[in-house]
Amino acid sequence: MKRILYFLICMLSIISFSHIEKNINVYSKAMKKNIPVTVVLPDDYNENNKYSTIYALHGWSGSNRNYVEKVSIGKLADMYGVIYVCPDGGYDSWYVDSEINKKSKYETFVAKELVDYIENNYFTYKDYKQRAITGLSMGGFGAFYVSINNPKTFGAIGSMSGGFDIEYFKLNWGITKYIDSNFEKYNIKDLATKLIFCGSKIIFDCGTSDFFIEANRELHNKLVKLNVPHDYIEREGSHSWVYWANSIKYQTLFFVNNFESNKK
Amino acid sequence: MKRILYFLICMLSIISFSHIEKNINVYSKAMKKNIPVTVVLPDDYNENNKYSTIYALHGWSGSNRNYVEKVSIGKLADMYGVIYVCPDGGYDSWYVDSEINKKSKYETFVAKELVDYIENNYFTYKDYKQRAITGLSMGGFGAFYVSINNPKTFGAIGSMSGGFDIEYFKLNWGITKYIDSNFEKYNIKDLATKLIFCGSKIIFDCGTSDFFIEANRELHNKLVKLNVPHDYIEREGSHSWVYWANSIKYQTLFFVNNFESNKK
Amino acid sequence: MKRILYFLICMLSIISFSHIEKNINVYSKAMKKNIPVTVVLPDDYNENNKYSTIYALHGWSGSNRNYVEKVSIGKLADMYGVIYVCPDGGYDSWYVDSEINKKSKYETFVAKELVDYIENNYFTYKDYKQRAITGLSMGGFGAFYVSINNPKTFGAIGSMSGGFDIEYFKLNWGITKYIDSNFEKYNIKDLATKLIFCGSKIIFDCGTSDFFIEANRELHNKLVKLNVPHDYIEREGSHSWVYWANSIKYQTLFFVNNFESNKK
Amino acid sequence: MKRILYFLICMLSIISFSHIEKNINVYSKAMKKNIPVTVVLPDDYNENNKYSTIYALHGWSGSNRNYVEKVSIGKLADMYGVIYVCPDGGYDSWYVDSEINKKSKYETFVAKELVDYIENNYFTYKDYKQRAITGLSMGGFGAFYVSINNPKTFGAIGSMSGGFDIEYFKLNWGITKYIDSNFEKYNIKDLATKLIFCGSKIIFDCGTSDFFIEANRELHNKLVKLNVPHDYIEREGSHSWVYWANSIKYQTLFFVNNFESNKK
Repeated sequence: MKRILYFLICMLSIISFSHIEKNINVYSKAMKKNIPVTVVLPDDYNENNKYSTIYALHGWSGSNRNYVEKVSIGKLADMYGVIYVCPDGGYDSWYVDSEINKKSKYETFVAKELVDYIENNYFTYKDYKQRAITGLSMGGFGAFYVSINNPKTFGAIGSMSGGFDIEYFKLNWGITKYIDSNFEKYNIKDLATKLIFCGSKIIFDCGTSDFFIEANRELHNKLVKLNVPHDYIEREGSHSWVYWANSIKYQTLFFVNNFESNKK
Repeated sequence: MKRILYFLICMLSIISFSHIEKNINVYSKAMKKNIPVTVVLPDDYNENNKYSTIYALHGWSGSNRNYVEKVSIGKLADMYGVIYVCPDGGYDSWYVDSEINKKSKYETFVAKELVDYIENNYFTYKDYKQRAITGLSMGGFGAFYVSINNPKTFGAIGSMSGGFDIEYFKLNWGITKYIDSNFEKYNIKDLATKLIFCGSKIIFDCGTSDFFIEANRELHNKLVKLNVPHDYIEREGSHSWVYWANSIKYQTLFFVNNFESNKK
Repeated sequence: MKRILYFLICMLSIISFSHIEKNINVYSKAMKKNIPVTVVLPDDYNENNKYSTIYALHGWSGSNRNYVEKVSIGKLADMYGVIYVCPDGGYDSWYVDSEINKKSKYETFVAKELVDYIENNYFTYKDYKQRAITGLSMGGFGAFYVSINNPKTFGAIGSMSGGFDIEYFKLNWGITKYIDSNFEKYNIKDLATKLIFCGSKIIFDCGTSDFFIEANRELHNKLVKLNVPHDYIEREGSHSWVYWANSIKYQTLFFVNNFESNKK
Repeated sequence: MKRILYFLICMLSIISFSHIEKNINVYSKAMKKNIPVTVVLPDDYNENNKYSTIYALHGWSGSNRNYVEKVSIGKLADMYGVIYVCPDGGYDSWYVDSEINKKSKYETFVAKELVDYIENNYFTYKDYKQRAITGLSMGGFGAFYVSINNPKTFGAIGSMSGGFDIEYFKLNWGITKYIDSNFEKYNIKDLATKLIFCGSKIIFDCGTSDFFIEANRELHNKLVKLNVPHDYIEREGSHSWVYWANSIKYQTLFFVNNFESNKK
């Protein structure tokens, strides 16, 4: 009997269930334009339930399609029953409200407009402790930057191979089109003290062959000295999708554990 | 219809399925005595399948019952479909074949006798790449020590809050009852070069408030300089079951990912 | 018979073949004047073939004649079948488009005007991966500076005894006639992040008795930390033609290997 | 006419010429056994000429066939007109006259017996300045160790990814089967002062992802402090044949330049 039921379940999970990918546009008042967003719903998504959300920010030159195309977040959504929200962050916006390019306001979009839209249109918890944000490279910077400047918006903050030291790399990846002064307001190491008592859990990682490894080590060392709780991981790897396809599994586990412990 | 089936599945998974815990004795020829071992089988365990195994070594003053009593490894066994094997490693054996106490031969027991017994009595893969070993504190030391001295026995090696630098801590935890000279044959940092080309994946972690943190950092830095691939995690936490209950989830994810990639 | 043929070949290679040296003027629109350029063609140069090119920049107070007069680049051209292009870079232009002396625009000349001229007038590949640039002292700085500011122009970048840290040496060699502010836009160490993902291979060397040795070490260490692939060589030697006559052989080997691997 | 001759030459070089590979046995009196040796002669090899020789030592677990099978030394022999001599150095002899295993006397074999044999049986120069030695990994150690202990035997000494710090790695690669005490007589860093006024040119290199990188950096720094002339190269790469296939080209260029300058 048990065997038959188990078989039935397996069949069902293959036939009936699988995550749902939605490609939508979310209007940004701040930027007066539609922003493409990919939302990944878990296979069991239904109105009788409430779901935690993980916002995943792409890297430089990427798009809202990156995580669904290059990383199996659909499987992770199913496995853990969470929603992923993947906004388009522009080619090189660095997820800031730019003082230079006044039309680029991705900080506002991600932290306010997008969160509002998602929670009004999907069956989510309305509690910031059931919301997490992460990102890779430029998106890792973005996840930290947006969270630091918008406390009590994301209950957990992650970064994969994050470009934390934006000033050091200012010649690259279009940074100076959006930020060209007051770097101390943007370098995550300079903002690190704001993570004291921030109320959010923190996880970040970097590959030992990545050009961002020293910037990540620097932030880790600073947070250790400040006794700011955080998970820090170094592993073999470079700045690549192979690395991120692995990393996202651990980041998701971290976020889900945090969601669970906050439900109790 | 789908809703009903889903409900059915949920009910079933609660009622019908759950991991099986076996408390057995495994005879050690080397030590001429029975060693208590707790084996945790996943809920779907059956003869038509083969299973990967995770050997989990307890810490000083612990027992084979630690992991099932203090950490939810049963849930992890179900979630990932793996077998956990938790041997009793004695009160303070440090998992070595002691040169002082000739009756204490836990290295031989774990690496040879126990692995043989498990693979002859359970539906396991017979491939070392489908075997992992980890441990906490004394057991973290043990997992590394046993693996280093028995190449191609465990395809992945883990440690949680490992007491790697056994010489530095020799006044504690009964160490000198088993090891009191030739510490360079026991300190993991001194054995680190043997991890070059060892063919096993490596993960270790430590809490930033743990007395073993510097020993772990030292090993990490040494392996970075030697370019030996490994995952290294630092996170908030002390030498406690709260820490290990969290850590074991990430270690298991690491092992399962490795099992999967070795099946391809 | 074979012996006779071999003798014949040897004779022929001495008598009939040898590289061709062309001393030409290339008009620079940017500077509104003719720039002397020495082009060295390999002995087998003919219209049925295509050739890779190595641009070689001279040092302070030098001229386009330096490489043919003081270094056996003719033999290297024959040996490897490549074209060397040796422009006159002015007495102390530092190969920049000067913000002070508006008439001095050697960056534009080398990266754009000269490359265009050469590829329109000689049987060269039209692919940047078949183009390399190197230089000595001021020219080593120039090769890096010009390449960094003109991505996808040279597939390999070299420097011999390069004066990388232009700010540190600003009292010397006429530097402040061309650059006297914004040194962070000129110091190669400050530009180093632009070498991430630059798509060009990198080689540089310096003599251990050279006044530029520390500047070279600093750049090497920085690139190691950034995980930017590069060949770095230290060898006995000072800032002299003896050193460069040796170094150019290794740089050429590096470029030729790169040309070959890019033809596959 | 010139075109025709050129064509003729090309044809001839394809048809008539190519390096000759000889697999011979050389009897070692010291070890009372035949040692397999692969000798690579350049295409123009003939009795009217004299040839310089490059001895190339393989790594741990390798054989005399390694260089001909995994690296294009035949082409290099043709290109530069030199002879390569590749002895079998045992599975893990470390090229020493072992104090432990009295039957293992590879230092004597390489430095005395093999050189004697080669110079009595091939058309070589009889001058140590026309002899070079290099090796990879264990062989890099061997090349330095043998040269240091046999002055005026090799006019140039090379190492690729050399395992210089034999004590640090003593747990690996069978080292303690041959050396288990007096490591200060074997560590190259401890022997470094013997390279002062040694009369031989020195070149060594290592990949930045190699486990031997720190040992190579240590030797380089020591030689810099001693003002012992040497070429030192770091480049991207690990402990692999891809790395050595590249490295051997530069090492050979170095040796050939040295041969040439010593002929003048």
